Formats: sequence, structure tokens, C-alpha cells
Amino acid sequence: MPLEALSSLLLAAADAHAAGAVPIVLLALAFAIVGAKLAGELVERLGQPAVLGELLFGVLVGNLALFGGPDLRHLAASETLTVLAELGAVLLLFHVGLESSPAEMLRVGARAGIVAVVGVVTPMLLGFGVGALLRPDDSWMVHAFLGAMLSATSVGITARVLKDTDTLRTQFARIILGAAVIDDVLGLVVLAVISGVITAAATGTTLSIAAVAVILLKAVAFLVGALAIGSLISPRLFRGALALQSRGVVLALSLGLCFALSYVALLAGLAPIVGAFAAGLVLEEVHFERHRERGEPPLHESLEPLIALLVPVFFVRMGMLVDLQSFATLSVLGFAVLLTLAAMVGKLACGFVAPEGVSRLTLGLGMMPRGEVGLIFAAIGSQLVLAGRPVIDASAYAAAIFMVMATTMLTPPLMLWSIKRSAAARPIAG
Amino acid sequence: MPLEALSSLLLAAADAHAAGAVPIVLLALAFAIVGAKLAGELVERLGQPAVLGELLFGVLVGNLALFGGPDLRHLAASETLTVLAELGAVLLLFHVGLESSPAEMLRVGARAGIVAVVGVVTPMLLGFGVGALLRPDDSWMVHAFLGAMLSATSVGITARVLKDTDTLRTQFARIILGAAVIDDVLGLVVLAVISGVITAAATGTTLSIAAVAVILLKAVAFLVGALAIGSLISPRLFRGALALQSRGVVLALSLGLCFALSYVALLAGLAPIVGAFAAGLVLEEVHFERHRERGEPPLHESLEPLIALLVPVFFVRMGMLVDLQSFATLSVLGFAVLLTLAAMVGKLACGFVAPEGVSRLTLGLGMMPRGEVGLIFAAIGSQLVLAGRPVIDASAYAAAIFMVMATTMLTPPLMLWSIKRSAAARPIAG
Repeated sequence: MPLEALSSLLLAAADAHAAGAVPIVLLALAFAIVGAKLAGELVERLGQPAVLGELLFGVLVGNLALFGGPDLRHLAASETLTVLAELGAVLLLFHVGLESSPAEMLRVGARAGIVAVVGVVTPMLLGFGVGALLRPDDSWMVHAFLGAMLSATSVGITARVLKDTDTLRTQFARIILGAAVIDDVLGLVVLAVISGVITAAATGTTLSIAAVAVILLKAVAFLVGALAIGSLISPRLFRGALALQSRGVVLALSLGLCFALSYVALLAGLAPIVGAFAAGLVLEEVHFERHRERGEPPLHESLEPLIALLVPVFFVRMGMLVDLQSFATLSVLGFAVLLTLAAMVGKLACGFVAPEGVSRLTLGLGMMPRGEVGLIFAAIGSQLVLAGRPVIDASAYAAAIFMVMATTMLTPPLMLWSIKRSAAARPIAG
Repeated sequence: MPLEALSSLLLAAADAHAAGAVPIVLLALAFAIVGAKLAGELVERLGQPAVLGELLFGVLVGNLALFGGPDLRHLAASETLTVLAELGAVLLLFHVGLESSPAEMLRVGARAGIVAVVGVVTPMLLGFGVGALLRPDDSWMVHAFLGAMLSATSVGITARVLKDTDTLRTQFARIILGAAVIDDVLGLVVLAVISGVITAAATGTTLSIAAVAVILLKAVAFLVGALAIGSLISPRLFRGALALQSRGVVLALSLGLCFALSYVALLAGLAPIVGAFAAGLVLEEVHFERHRERGEPPLHESLEPLIALLVPVFFVRMGMLVDLQSFATLSVLGFAVLLTLAAMVGKLACGFVAPEGVSRLTLGLGMMPRGEVGLIFAAIGSQLVLAGRPVIDASAYAAAIFMVMATTMLTPPLMLWSIKRSAAARPIAG
């Protein structure tokens, strides 16, 4: 059977050429980049931010099976596309961090801290209330976990809207970004405490304060260490790098620092984007002005094409993870809507501690999206068991996804509207 | 045990944050980018091309275990890093293709075809001879497979040297690149025929001419189709894209075309880089001059940061795949050296059909590297069985790796030297 032998041989050759995931990644990247750009253009013409178009394009692609198309959602779970999406988020937050400095962040530090605490405590209380109201038979610990699920801000969406509206250097942007970083730390502690309490209850033991302190210490040590050491080292590093002759030294060293700090953040139990943001903060473009004199483009310009390739992968993938079918039953939908309202109102409460001259609404809206962090909390909750049942059951999980989806989708148009509205009312602070 | 429960919980949180391969990819990218840049700088100071430094850095990292360090070679086999490396190669060849046009390639087409045929036939004959000399007991089919293994040029290394020496727009560069593309097609046919003959012999059947014709037709149809349709469509496409308002439309559409054609090339049984090269050829920067008038950077500049991030991953990974230990025995080394000489002399023979005004040595050297294609042939040969033994046994496999490594490592310094030498002798043709 020469033809059969040959076709199996060709398959082997194609496989070898293909190195496993290469073909599907090439195809997915081609579709994601072009589709995201066209969808972004479409919604921009409707006066909406491009990122909403990318998310909706992802939802469409991920739910093609509902319209008789192929089921493509499993693509979003592929290891390589997950990593490419995460690299996109890392580069986006690195870019956002570049627009600010540790000194500027410290200036808004106290205020960002207050905003973060309000943005963690209020949604927790409201989420607890929704749980107690709709699921009175469950333990208070389940209600507390539902509340904890609403606590952590996911800053990717907001960062993108701030970048697209050119408002990264405003006071409210710095407060939101600072609060979101503190939020990530607080969210981690809340998750650790409530999960620890549930695990302890299930095994009949208690959670030690020392264990909680270790989590908090690791996260704070990372933030303080990265900012302090980074600020000290990076000027020397880039001055030393001037001795190197080849082009692209600044880009290589900067990306190296960005990826390295993202990795260290993971070791400290934080999201990699927190490390990338810290790396962006400590890098000051002024340190490599001499490289620019050689005719190399400034760092933030070099990052643009990387962001153009990888960031749409992040947002399209996030949209693809949405399963429209999980909202088919009315009781799930009711629970989901109430939980989402709690999540939104809880973060809008941050607006009440906004300083003079900052729009309360814009600040609150900026804290609203939950993104992947909410999904991570839900996934951990679905693996915790209390009284023989998962803490986050199937309908609570669907509600969590609805909450993440709604806060993620609503934030870009609402923020755009709110930023334009307050810009019309008064000039934006430099 | 609260601390134990907590640490397992933290691991779960880190895992969820980490999404499997993310931490290791972040760490590997940080090391690869910075290490490649420093190693490249080091060898450039010694008058060698940067790519040699990246390859040697990879060899060092991949063989740390020999010096008592950790074994990192398995990293090179990780799915995500393999895909990132392949994306690097795809973007490099896309960039290289941009520097030329189908018309310019057609002008050197006949000559490139002759060069390609010489570059396939001569190494095959020499490889057959080495097999017949050192392994007289093996079948002539094994000797033929050894020869076939030496046939296909891997153009990544040469493309990089041409790019780094700013000679992409010279006549010899176009001949080398055209010949390498034709070579990929011829190599595919040779591999299919010889493997088909061996499989047929093992099963007692014969290979039909029709089956071989199908392989050849698919590959030629891809090349002709991609160039013809692409040249027709791309001006219209980018003129139409002018209607879009958002920034980065040209970059998004160009990357989309690049990835899509790379995917179609895979379907036709060719390497994805052949598709990327074709995509670069059909795109002419003049078609999006109007986008540039809006203040967007030219496409080849936007590609530079993507190349800076991903191309070092390709070359460092290629170095990491080299296992220095496999050359420990003298008989393997002797076989390897002879096979390498056959591979080198066979491709240098291309120089004899160089046109007037083109350095024979530079042309021959440019065809010399085998890269991954040689390894793919060896891997397929190791799975073919003849008379109960693999066609490519362990020592032949080690020799193939040595051949790939030597041609890959020797090409950059030799080409650089040869280009400088002929540039000193006469001006380079525009």
C-alpha cells in the first residue's frame, strides 16, 4: 500500500515540521489578531472601547457551537495559548508601569491603600449578604467565601482602558493602579484566611495567625523589595549596559527584568502581572537616554508591537472562556445577577473615599473588573469541601463566571463614558 | 495541620495564577533574552556574528549537567518554548521576505533552481559514498537515506547572517534564499521517495510514481498559489484597510497573513518558515505608505521588537538541543566528521554554478546550514525499519546531530569572513 505508507510518512513529516502545537497556534494567532482588530474597529465606531470588541469577539468564537459552528472553546485551554495570553497581560502591565514611577505611586500610596481596603471589605460584606439571603441553609463559611470571591480587582481591563484613553498619567489612574496592586495582596490574604478556616473546620483544627502572617509577609516583602532594590539597581544596570555595543540592549534587559520580576511575584504567591507592573515602575526611561541618542527607539515604542501581537490574545481568550450556556436556568441567572450587583456596588463604594478633584464614579468603575482573579477564586472554592459538598457548587460557579463577565464587559464602556464626562466638566490633572 | 493545609492551598493558588507552564516560561524567557544578548555581544567583540554567541549560549545551558549543573535540556522540549522558538523563526523569515519581492525572486529563479538542484544532488552522492565506505554491510537504501539526510538547507541561520550583515538586498542573498525555498521542496520529495522505497521494500510492495507526484504538486501549488494570489490580493487588502481608523491595522493584517500562510505551508507538507517567507515576499511596504502618513512606523521597524523577543529563543533552543555527550566514542566521532565533510563539500559545490559577479564561496557557505531540517530527517529515519534494524541507528543519529551542529556553528563565522572578503574585493551589487 504505497499511498497509505506515504500518507502516514507525510503525516510524520508534517508532525516533525509542526512540532505538536505549532499549526494550531499559527492558525489561532492569525484569527485572533485579525479578528480582534476588526472587532475593535467595529465597536470603536459605535463609540465603545476596542477591548470590548476583542472580548465580544472571544465570546463569539468560544460559543460558535451554539450557532451550529465548531466547538473552539478547548483552544482557549491549550497550554501555549494560555502562556501567550499571560505574556500579553504581563507586557501590558509592564507598559502601564513604565508610565509611572515608585515616587509617584508613593504619593498616592495612602489614598490607594484606603481605596483598596474599601474595595475589599464592601464587596465581601455584600457578597456575604447575598449568600445569606439566597442560600440560608449553607454555612456562614460558604457565605464568606462567596464574599471573598468578589474582593480582588483584576487590573488588566482597567489598565487597557486607561492606556487607550491616554489617561495613565492622571491622579485617578495612579490611585486605581496602586489600589489594584494592594488589592491583589489583600485578596490573597483573604483567600488564604477563608480557605484556611474552611479547611481547618473540615479537618477539625484551627488556623494559626502565624501562617496568615507568612503569606502577608511574603507578598509585602516582594513589593517593597522589588521597588526598593529595583529603583537602586536599574540606573546602574542601564548605565553599565551602555558599554555594550549591539542594538536592542535596552529592550533585552528591560524584558529580562520584566519576566524575572513576574516570576518572583509568582514565587511570592502574587499574580505575575503584579511583578511586571513593579518592573515597569522601577524602570525610568531617562536612564537609557544615551541609548536613544544612538538612534534606538524609546522603550515604550518598542513594546507597542509586542503588545499588538500578544494583548489581543489575552482578551480574546478571556472572552472565549465565557460559556453562554451556563446561564440557561432562571434560578442560576437570578443568583448571578444579585452576586454581580453586589460585586459592582461593592467596588463603586471605593468612589466615596476618592480625593478632591477625582471623579468618584470613574475611580469606582476602574476598580470594578474581576477578570481572571475572580475565576481563580471560584476554581479554588470548587475544590474546597465542607460538609461533603463543594464550597462553590455548579450554580455558584456559573454565577461567578457571570459576575466576572459582566464586570469585565461593562467596565470599558462605562469607564469611557465616565472619563469623557468628567473631562468635559473639568481639565484632567497632569 | 494548618500550616500544611495552607501550604498546599498556596500551591493551588500559585498553580491557578501560574496556569501550568507560565512560571517556567517567564524564567526561561528572562534568561534566554538576556543571556543571548550578552553572549552575542561577547562574540561580536571577537569579530564573530551574534547568532554564534546565541547558539553557544544554548549549547552551554543545555549541557550544564556535564559541568555539575542542573539538567536543563528538557526545557528545550517543552511545548510552549518550542512554539515560541518556531514563532521566532517564522517572524525572522517573514522579515527576510519583506526585503524582497516575487519579481526580484523570479529574476534569480532559474539560477536559484540550478543552485538548489546541485545543492541537493551533490551532498546526496557524497553521503551515499560515506555510507558505502564506512558501513559496507548495510543496504544501499540505508546509504541513500544517509545521503538524503544531507540534502535540505535550513535557511534560518543564513537569513540571520544576511540580515545582520545588511546584505539581504544583494544578488547572492536572493539566490541563496530562493534556492533554499526550492531546496525545501526538493528535500521533501527526496525524503518521501527514499522513505517510500524503504517502506515498500520492508512490506514487499513498490512505490507509485503517482504518490510522489502528489507530494511535489502540493508543494509547488502552494508556492505558485501563495505568490500569485498574494501578489494580487495584498495591494487591494491594504488599500481597503485604509478605511479602518485604529492604529496598528497594518501590523495586525500583516501578522495575520504571515501566520495564515505559515499554516497553509504546513498543510502542503512544507516548513512553516517557507510560508512566512512567501508572505513577506508578497507584501510590499509601498502598499501601506498611506498608513505611514498617519504617523505609524513602517512594518519592518514594528517587527524588530518581536524579532528581538522571539528569535533568540529559536537560536538558544537550537543550541540547547545539542548533546555534547553523544560524541564521546571515537568511532561515532569519525563517522560524524566524515558525514559533516560530505555535507559541507556537497553544499559548497553550489558555488560552481554561481553567476558572474557572485562570490562562489559565499553562495556555497550560505547553503551549508542544516538546522532543524536535518534533525527532522534523522528522526524520521530512526523510525523507519529495514531488515529488523532502524535505518538511522544511535550512532548515525549522533553523527547527524554533529553534522547539523557543525554546519550550523561554522556557517556564521565563515559567511561573515567571506562576505567581508568579497566586499573588500568588489562593491556589493544593489
